[in-house]
Amino acid sequence: MPTYRAPVKDMTFIINEVVRLQNYANLPGFEDATPDIIQAILEEGGKLAEEVLQPINQSGDAEGCTRHDDGSVTTPKGFKEAFKLYAEGGWMGLSAATEYGGQGLPHVLSSAMEELGCGANLAFNMYPGLTHGAIAAISLAASDELKEKYLPKMIAGDWTGTMNLTEPHCGTDLGMMRSKAEPQSDGSYKITGTKIFISAGEHDLTENIIHLVLAKIPGGPEGIKGVSLFLVPKFMVNGDGSLGERNGVACGSIEEKMGIHANSTCVLNYDGATGWLVGEEHKGMRAMFIMMNAARLGVGIQGLGLSEVAYQNAVDYANDRLQGRALTGPVNEDGPADPIIVHPDVRRMLMDLRAFNEGARALALWTALQGDLMHKSPDEAERQRASDLMGLMTPVIKGVFTDAGYANATTAQQCYGGHGYIKEWGMEQFVRDARITQIYEGTNGIQAMDLVGRKLPRDGGRAVREYFALLQSVLEDAGADERMAEFIAPMQAAIADLQGASMWLMQNAMQDPNHAGAGATAYMHLLGLVALGHMWILIVKAAHEALDGGTEDPDFYNNKLITARYFFARMLPDTAADRRKVEAGAAPVMALAANAF
Amino acid sequence: MPTYRAPVKDMTFIINEVVRLQNYANLPGFEDATPDIIQAILEEGGKLAEEVLQPINQSGDAEGCTRHDDGSVTTPKGFKEAFKLYAEGGWMGLSAATEYGGQGLPHVLSSAMEELGCGANLAFNMYPGLTHGAIAAISLAASDELKEKYLPKMIAGDWTGTMNLTEPHCGTDLGMMRSKAEPQSDGSYKITGTKIFISAGEHDLTENIIHLVLAKIPGGPEGIKGVSLFLVPKFMVNGDGSLGERNGVACGSIEEKMGIHANSTCVLNYDGATGWLVGEEHKGMRAMFIMMNAARLGVGIQGLGLSEVAYQNAVDYANDRLQGRALTGPVNEDGPADPIIVHPDVRRMLMDLRAFNEGARALALWTALQGDLMHKSPDEAERQRASDLMGLMTPVIKGVFTDAGYANATTAQQCYGGHGYIKEWGMEQFVRDARITQIYEGTNGIQAMDLVGRKLPRDGGRAVREYFALLQSVLEDAGADERMAEFIAPMQAAIADLQGASMWLMQNAMQDPNHAGAGATAYMHLLGLVALGHMWILIVKAAHEALDGGTEDPDFYNNKLITARYFFARMLPDTAADRRKVEAGAAPVMALAANAF
Repeated sequence: MPTYRAPVKDMTFIINEVVRLQNYANLPGFEDATPDIIQAILEEGGKLAEEVLQPINQSGDAEGCTRHDDGSVTTPKGFKEAFKLYAEGGWMGLSAATEYGGQGLPHVLSSAMEELGCGANLAFNMYPGLTHGAIAAISLAASDELKEKYLPKMIAGDWTGTMNLTEPHCGTDLGMMRSKAEPQSDGSYKITGTKIFISAGEHDLTENIIHLVLAKIPGGPEGIKGVSLFLVPKFMVNGDGSLGERNGVACGSIEEKMGIHANSTCVLNYDGATGWLVGEEHKGMRAMFIMMNAARLGVGIQGLGLSEVAYQNAVDYANDRLQGRALTGPVNEDGPADPIIVHPDVRRMLMDLRAFNEGARALALWTALQGDLMHKSPDEAERQRASDLMGLMTPVIKGVFTDAGYANATTAQQCYGGHGYIKEWGMEQFVRDARITQIYEGTNGIQAMDLVGRKLPRDGGRAVREYFALLQSVLEDAGADERMAEFIAPMQAAIADLQGASMWLMQNAMQDPNHAGAGATAYMHLLGLVALGHMWILIVKAAHEALDGGTEDPDFYNNKLITARYFFARMLPDTAADRRKVEAGAAPVMALAANAF
Repeated sequence: MPTYRAPVKDMTFIINEVVRLQNYANLPGFEDATPDIIQAILEEGGKLAEEVLQPINQSGDAEGCTRHDDGSVTTPKGFKEAFKLYAEGGWMGLSAATEYGGQGLPHVLSSAMEELGCGANLAFNMYPGLTHGAIAAISLAASDELKEKYLPKMIAGDWTGTMNLTEPHCGTDLGMMRSKAEPQSDGSYKITGTKIFISAGEHDLTENIIHLVLAKIPGGPEGIKGVSLFLVPKFMVNGDGSLGERNGVACGSIEEKMGIHANSTCVLNYDGATGWLVGEEHKGMRAMFIMMNAARLGVGIQGLGLSEVAYQNAVDYANDRLQGRALTGPVNEDGPADPIIVHPDVRRMLMDLRAFNEGARALALWTALQGDLMHKSPDEAERQRASDLMGLMTPVIKGVFTDAGYANATTAQQCYGGHGYIKEWGMEQFVRDARITQIYEGTNGIQAMDLVGRKLPRDGGRAVREYFALLQSVLEDAGADERMAEFIAPMQAAIADLQGASMWLMQNAMQDPNHAGAGATAYMHLLGLVALGHMWILIVKAAHEALDGGTEDPDFYNNKLITARYFFARMLPDTAADRRKVEAGAAPVMALAANAF
């Protein structure tokens, strides 16, 4: 049976010493996030993850969800009780608006909690995860009336939320959707259509479910420009907040999937269901993107959470399993063999995961801070820059973290040899669960296209220019310390690769957009490596400062330096291969006739 | 439901025009392998794969194997009938010795058939696959008496075989094994112990199963030097070949696995079972390695087979699924959207798979030819060189092809978007099935260590020097044609990376073996890319020759050139990153204290 240890120490290190949250105490909500409070919150969250969520992860996978003939869905044993504890702990509202009952704390904290939940139990964490996205969309786009009616219950964890986009014939290309919304005289709409792949679409965790549904109002513009967003509750809500009649939405079936068995993936049939417009008519995609951007960062963090738990278990196994002898002579002389962690190829696997996890955790929390800054900073220039950086990093975190999450879960499973393939060890579940993160909320190919086709050229390339300027100032700042030279040199080479690839795309993609498409995934991974390198520079700097200041835990900081050296020697230089792929252009990719494949 | 089309045309192209089997007609068995015969055999094998094996692949996964209280195991519906057709078709004995009823044809052909079986149904193909390994070990190491008693029935497909190595506490490190074999007065041994992860260990396909079992004879040398190999039939075989009493071996349980559900993975309990020594006492590993080397090539081909079937289905889906518009303008103007194959990032995925599959198929068949030459060539120097090259390529094909098989099955699944995660589409089964190939027959980390620790330094590095000389002569030969320049330049850069990395290892691994271990996996992938590049040079050369000769199918050959350009532009240059990882040495990998992970 796998275990999970909440990485609270690494999180507080990143928040206090790398991202340095205390520098932003002037922002609303940040004044409460003192190091003591942060520590207390993450320890409490870690306890929930370790003691409540993790123990029902493997059993939840084995049991799965069950749909009954009446369309109701039962979640696995223990999920309802766990959700109650999650809601009672106030976790749903950690960063939500105080006026609707939230705690208004920085997203840096709720992002850290997101990792803990996903590391412990991804299928469980999707139920609150989707609710967070729905809360974000309602908060930013819905009328005050809808907010007052729905947000308090959702923020309290009494009700959950969903996102309804996909239909059988359209996923990425939502302009083709057929679901329709007919306006009624009372200002509501009647929604009719079929939505598929609706995570957490039906369950027994809460008494109501608030669906956010994309549909077309008849007579509106064609395609994606005629799509509107609606709020459709499972049960109607009376004026006094009590629940009324069942609405016209029902779960037609649940999907048989590769993984995340404990999350119900539903076909939802809307048959004249009553809904209310969120935002403006035909501007549904704008509202949906608020939700999707929040969800995409959340999915990236899912990849990180799975990579972390897979790493922890692989480390435990590598320290326990005796097999063979160290190449340089026995280290466990009295035993029949050495633990496999002595073998360099096993360490290579573990170091790959460790160096990713620690850098990615910093990047996730750094990006969450940009998300706070873009809304809360009093300085307009800072808000804009944070919004630009957030936009640039969102597809990178979604795409790169989930590709890594899957690869790393696979690598951790590999450390187990044959036992990794056997269900009872639990490693293969991490792989099956991680696989969905590369697909949902926009496949990683779509993330890459969002990056090179939208985020990169937008505003004349302002975001990436701002990022290069930031990297420059980080290196200048770090460069004053001679001990940073060993890290700065490979970082400069990686930045040069990113600059070269960016320049190539800007010069060539205008004349042939297939150049952008052909290099998109490689470019996304290139930017991801540079962004991780950026974090490792900050981590190393923080480690030197702690060591210079006579920390009581020098091992912790020295291990940061050791792990950084692995990252800069073995992982970051892959930027060269990514750049070469970008600069190979469209021809090799597009030359074959479609019918010749 | 997935489909499968046997790639017979590509196989005959490789056999006749790339590997050029007709140049070896002087070897025994090869004189019968004329192009007509090859075509007929592969078409027949392709029919079996497409019409018999593939249709029971998905149902076999869903149903799995069932162990009954009496220890018997039932395979899924249709497997028994399919195995009968496989045996009746003579496929078990395609390359087996004619004196025991085999057809004695080149291994090039049986390797091609191996790919067809694995592409259609991996879990099924493991039953004959393990039998092939057992036949190889008995043929080369057992006494004539054992050969005469067991080989004809195994080659006819009346009985299957297994390999019994792993015990609960030892997999890679077989020196720790506890199973014991007590000599009896009649020359037989009584075998007692528990073996785990025994693929095809118990089933209902045939009336008898011949287990090859590693065990220790009491009083023998400690560790791996005291391991012997035994033949242990499930049912005793009488003098007249009829079956006698049940032997003392029983299936204790079958494992719940991530995939290959239709193959029974057994715990086998030996309780004083009667067995006969294969080869010499205490020299069991030598005999077992014969079997394992054959099995490792077979497992590599499993990776290729899965990559091919996953590719085919992804192509079909990409041509069918309408979503979005081509970046350069609509191609399906009358439809609601374009097929997703217009999108460069989808093509990137498909081209990655295609370029691997075609190059890997050539490499598998080229290596199978070395396997034939090392036994059958009349020229001792040629036998030795073939044996060296075979030894060098065996871990590469096992490790690189299965890493690619898993990655490519995952990529093909990605082309399906959300549907790829749903069981009924069948893509996730390819991923789950492919995963085991990286683990069994020695994990890929073990393959990498076999390569850098054993195959590379052996005989003063003779094998790799021979390989460099071969590459040199291939490039000189190809270089006479100006049109080859675009392929030769990147190939020379890749060879330089391989030479640099080889040199670095030879200079540094002696003083610190951890240098070899830390770079082993990167080196294996580097050699794999160069070997695929070698094949693509041969393929391009053959394509030019066919085009110059006025072929009736110029598209087939032009598409080879297009796919080669993709390989040389986008895949081969990754050798630079692999080389950099090798040359980073042991320090970054080994610096962290074991208890600090």
